[in-house]
Amino acid sequence: MTSTAVQKLATEGFGIENLPYGSFELDGKTQLGIRLGDHVIGLETLISKVGGLDEKVAVAAAQPNLDALLAGGKEIWSPLRAWIQQTLNDEAAADDVLNSAISLDKVSMKLAFTPADYVDYYASEHHATNLGKMFRPNEDALKPNWKHLPVGYHGRSGTIFASGTDVIRPKGLRPGQESIPSFGPSNRLDIEAEMGFVLGGAAPRGEVDVAAAADHIFGVFLFNDWSARDIQNYEYVPLGPNLGKSFASTVGEWIVPFEALNGARVAPPERTFELASYLHDPSDEHGEFGLDVTLSVLLNDEVLSNPPFGLMYFTAPQMLAHMTVNGGSLRPGDMFASGTISGPEKDQRGSFIELSWGGKESLQLSDGSEMTFLRDGDTVTLQGTAPGPNGSTINFGNCVGTIKSAT
Amino acid sequence: MTSTAVQKLATEGFGIENLPYGSFELDGKTQLGIRLGDHVIGLETLISKVGGLDEKVAVAAAQPNLDALLAGGKEIWSPLRAWIQQTLNDEAAADDVLNSAISLDKVSMKLAFTPADYVDYYASEHHATNLGKMFRPNEDALKPNWKHLPVGYHGRSGTIFASGTDVIRPKGLRPGQESIPSFGPSNRLDIEAEMGFVLGGAAPRGEVDVAAAADHIFGVFLFNDWSARDIQNYEYVPLGPNLGKSFASTVGEWIVPFEALNGARVAPPERTFELASYLHDPSDEHGEFGLDVTLSVLLNDEVLSNPPFGLMYFTAPQMLAHMTVNGGSLRPGDMFASGTISGPEKDQRGSFIELSWGGKESLQLSDGSEMTFLRDGDTVTLQGTAPGPNGSTINFGNCVGTIKSAT
Repeated sequence: MTSTAVQKLATEGFGIENLPYGSFELDGKTQLGIRLGDHVIGLETLISKVGGLDEKVAVAAAQPNLDALLAGGKEIWSPLRAWIQQTLNDEAAADDVLNSAISLDKVSMKLAFTPADYVDYYASEHHATNLGKMFRPNEDALKPNWKHLPVGYHGRSGTIFASGTDVIRPKGLRPGQESIPSFGPSNRLDIEAEMGFVLGGAAPRGEVDVAAAADHIFGVFLFNDWSARDIQNYEYVPLGPNLGKSFASTVGEWIVPFEALNGARVAPPERTFELASYLHDPSDEHGEFGLDVTLSVLLNDEVLSNPPFGLMYFTAPQMLAHMTVNGGSLRPGDMFASGTISGPEKDQRGSFIELSWGGKESLQLSDGSEMTFLRDGDTVTLQGTAPGPNGSTINFGNCVGTIKSAT
Repeated sequence: MTSTAVQKLATEGFGIENLPYGSFELDGKTQLGIRLGDHVIGLETLISKVGGLDEKVAVAAAQPNLDALLAGGKEIWSPLRAWIQQTLNDEAAADDVLNSAISLDKVSMKLAFTPADYVDYYASEHHATNLGKMFRPNEDALKPNWKHLPVGYHGRSGTIFASGTDVIRPKGLRPGQESIPSFGPSNRLDIEAEMGFVLGGAAPRGEVDVAAAADHIFGVFLFNDWSARDIQNYEYVPLGPNLGKSFASTVGEWIVPFEALNGARVAPPERTFELASYLHDPSDEHGEFGLDVTLSVLLNDEVLSNPPFGLMYFTAPQMLAHMTVNGGSLRPGDMFASGTISGPEKDQRGSFIELSWGGKESLQLSDGSEMTFLRDGDTVTLQGTAPGPNGSTINFGNCVGTIKSAT
């Protein structure tokens, strides 16, 4: 039984099985909403029309963004999603739903949550191998630790932006002649096509194990960790990337509930070494926690590659368990991202440094031009889809940024 | 002219020239206060008794912590300090001041601000050289970039704690046999004796230059970046430290206003290479921005070393200018720390990995015991003093933590 409202509004990828969250502004007011087809339904609006939602849940949902839901934890967000799905399917509520739906072309999308701490991993074996070959040609591409733990670092939370925010080309010190660096705008501005995970519920003592991890992962989104490869390459030894990354990262417009991806579960790659017990591959009734999401990297609307998230060596619960095994606490709004997603094929690479092999192999674009790294004016769009329940598709929407010249 | 109140309350190091800020709890209420001698004076209390403070400034000061002052920027915190100094020196207000003063042994100290982003630098040449020799014995101790930019990385803001918070020994993967790591509690738990800097006023486009940096540095404090050297050593290539640091960092009890350190200004070390223009050594009417702060590292009340902050290769305005030169924005509450402070002498080293030379040289303690890295039950206290105006001393108070066994 599908209600009239769902029949009228749902589209492939944005049906009742998905219902991702986003923060949208209309007429100066920002509201948390869910996407159904090419419409967004404001939760404050819907709750006020329909009623029947627990008061505590209703208060957390009727906010400008996800922060209160994340603070409330699964006991708040799980009944909210159940109520939304029930309401959308309820024929008696069809008029209220239809009257709450706003066409997406009328709204502007905002950052859906306030990032607390942000950890970026490096969990694609193909990406780490490609970068290792380019950055450290005289060493083994993968460091000895890589298959034993998800290597990662903290990034800058204050420069995480909403999809659609322009990216100003950063300046910094780049490798120069005779070991003296030169200062100026990055000449090797790049993307990293990633998946991000936003966390909720507090874990003040850390030690969230792989079995409990799924209860803390609220949602999943496309994430672009813009990278200035020349700045990064000069600065990163021995403490890792800093200014080469900290100028901007972009969160996709829509946060897909983690439970909407239960139909996309796949086993992660076979392990080369047995993992430490705190990283043992978790599973539940939906299977293991690899996620069969296929991304698309678009440059000015041309698809350049399709990175496969299902091949990542470490799963999201493993990344979360790792982050907290040392007692590191978790706050609502903490997030992590997977690191660049790349597959074994050239058209599965999630960064321009890999697509152009360190700038040595130009990409031939459909407009006849050639390029290696990003040019001023270029627009990069990440997209992604995953299998949903009952043959449906889960669509992640867009994660967009346009390069502006250095100021 | 010194007022009766200041005469009665001030002590060496905590006189009218210093007046550091702290957040204290008494009878369940937390209030921002300033320290005078062995007393804290609650600002909400003092403002309500004395009056005469601009309303906007008064509202920002009458809070549980520094967050509102930091958000307000220098135009708020500068008149506040002027009002406090004037009020304390005003004989007519002496009774109000004395009635507002609370003995420190009656209060408990809290984290004085909410850290937004946190960058940790690595700006001591002696420390970086010592660590390089130990971690990378077959290479040059300093990487080629080290003297051209302040090398740094982002740390975890959510695990920054108030002085006095216990530190639970972290668990993690440590180097094992035949390149297979072993999991367990850190065997090489260490400190990093640092100075921290908390920032205020927003800089949404970044690019805070060295000349403007001093306007964004609200205050200076002792900072202990606890480090698990075995976990760090296994994980840190190629993306830098993560779990080896992210379990805990400790902020000293008192935040010394940056302007209280004008009498401690010294020139930084002579530069080996000319720095890029955005890092050119800044100065103002008080001189260059090196700070002649001498720290003390105490283990269970025994002084082990006296790290000299004045020898740091990069100054605080340089660290801030670097952090924002790529366009990275600044939020109130953002902080950075200097990295471990070590001088050329053994009794100037700011970490146990240096004091014990990688665990090879035991420290002989006054109680007859020997040790290398921290033991359960050990208490580490950082202290620090700097010259103040007119022959006074600026004291930073204590930054304390006690090691608890792994759980």
